[in-house]
Amino acid sequence: MNPLENIRVVLVGTLYTGNVGSSCRAMANMGIRHLRLAAPNLQNDWEEGRRLAVHATGILDAREEFATFEEAVADCVAVVGTTAREGLYRQHVKAPRDCAADILSLAATGPVALVFGREDKGLLNEEVAQCTHLIRIPVDAGYTSINLSQAVLITCYEFFAASGRYQPPHEKAPPAPQAQKMQLMKNWAAMLEEIGFMKPGQADHFMQGFHRVFSRGVFTKDDAALLLGVARQAIWAKKNAEKGTHDEDGCGDSDV
Amino acid sequence: MNPLENIRVVLVGTLYTGNVGSSCRAMANMGIRHLRLAAPNLQNDWEEGRRLAVHATGILDAREEFATFEEAVADCVAVVGTTAREGLYRQHVKAPRDCAADILSLAATGPVALVFGREDKGLLNEEVAQCTHLIRIPVDAGYTSINLSQAVLITCYEFFAASGRYQPPHEKAPPAPQAQKMQLMKNWAAMLEEIGFMKPGQADHFMQGFHRVFSRGVFTKDDAALLLGVARQAIWAKKNAEKGTHDEDGCGDSDV
Repeated sequence: MNPLENIRVVLVGTLYTGNVGSSCRAMANMGIRHLRLAAPNLQNDWEEGRRLAVHATGILDAREEFATFEEAVADCVAVVGTTAREGLYRQHVKAPRDCAADILSLAATGPVALVFGREDKGLLNEEVAQCTHLIRIPVDAGYTSINLSQAVLITCYEFFAASGRYQPPHEKAPPAPQAQKMQLMKNWAAMLEEIGFMKPGQADHFMQGFHRVFSRGVFTKDDAALLLGVARQAIWAKKNAEKGTHDEDGCGDSDV
Repeated sequence: MNPLENIRVVLVGTLYTGNVGSSCRAMANMGIRHLRLAAPNLQNDWEEGRRLAVHATGILDAREEFATFEEAVADCVAVVGTTAREGLYRQHVKAPRDCAADILSLAATGPVALVFGREDKGLLNEEVAQCTHLIRIPVDAGYTSINLSQAVLITCYEFFAASGRYQPPHEKAPPAPQAQKMQLMKNWAAMLEEIGFMKPGQADHFMQGFHRVFSRGVFTKDDAALLLGVARQAIWAKKNAEKGTHDEDGCGDSDV
């Protein structure tokens, strides 16, 4: 069972449909699909909300609405409030990255509410007092007021990351082994002598520079194959030119 | 020197001022203040952009504009492209969390560009080809299209987190030592006998339940002091009632 399925994003007293719509899109990006509105206080119609939801209108249309905060979280085994403020009832606030994994393991046992307050004044003290967990998104001290849908995004992002459902991209080619890298150095030394870039006996000096560049940049077998192709081709071109002929099609076929 | 000062957020070919404004606010939240527009292709006026920047209009007003991508990144020691797509020139893409620290150490040596493409088609292949690093924001496979300012937010958030400039909140009270926790168990056992919740001899059984609850919930000296206060007060109230008197002001004074 995917614990993200048990996450309920609960927006409390939200004022603008645009923030609801943007939150839907952010949720969809992070694999979280259940939206609840608690005591919504919407000041505009759904045109903007639907527009900003883009292709996440399915989440918007499937939303549940509740008259009160209490009803919206009544079935939840954990109620995670987000708060930007310090002070009363907020002693045990944590950064989302530091508690997402623990809360997600609760979500494997039942519904978990991620609760976001009003655009203008956040969660009220009596709402914070009902939360089982409190999180505060890390922000710069110079500008701590974060947009509602941006807060939804970062919170959902941390839960998505904690779920392990995202596989970070990695290099498709396998890493180049040392023997291939040393072959690269040897073939380049031969090529550089052949084209007259360096004289015999200067290799030790010059090759240090290429070794430095290649050590930083050549990670995969494809990388090494690419540069081995250059050495092969340069030698071929020079020898071919000595014979008084030239073949424009003799280029390498390595991957970029 | 704060390496975040060397970050340049570069928006390429952006269509809507609202996304520029929202990006400014996201940057301000994450302590990143230098915005560049490369070949902007704005389809609406700055009214929406200024409105969504909210209190980050300083970043908007201080933006630099460049006719081309090349000019916008010419002075940068690293050019970090963001891309949602797979394929050509994108073999070495990484998740922002996996490379932010390395890139930030480059930012300690000179300007670093974080580059974001057009709302509709991202960065072009020829722009990706000029990037020294590529990142892809983790998103759910079901909805991979992320709003421009949301992409700016998550990327800046990861660099802000990597900068170590944010101190995650922590409990203000020190952790309760074991001796205080055991005193709590002992005083509660005495209180529970005194008020008749359990008979002498039942303590071993009942106290296991309280031990379980307290082990999960009592972390700080304040937590323990709060519950010690309850035991003290309950005993006082019961004994006081036996004397036929009652004092409403005899409540505890511990922190919540």
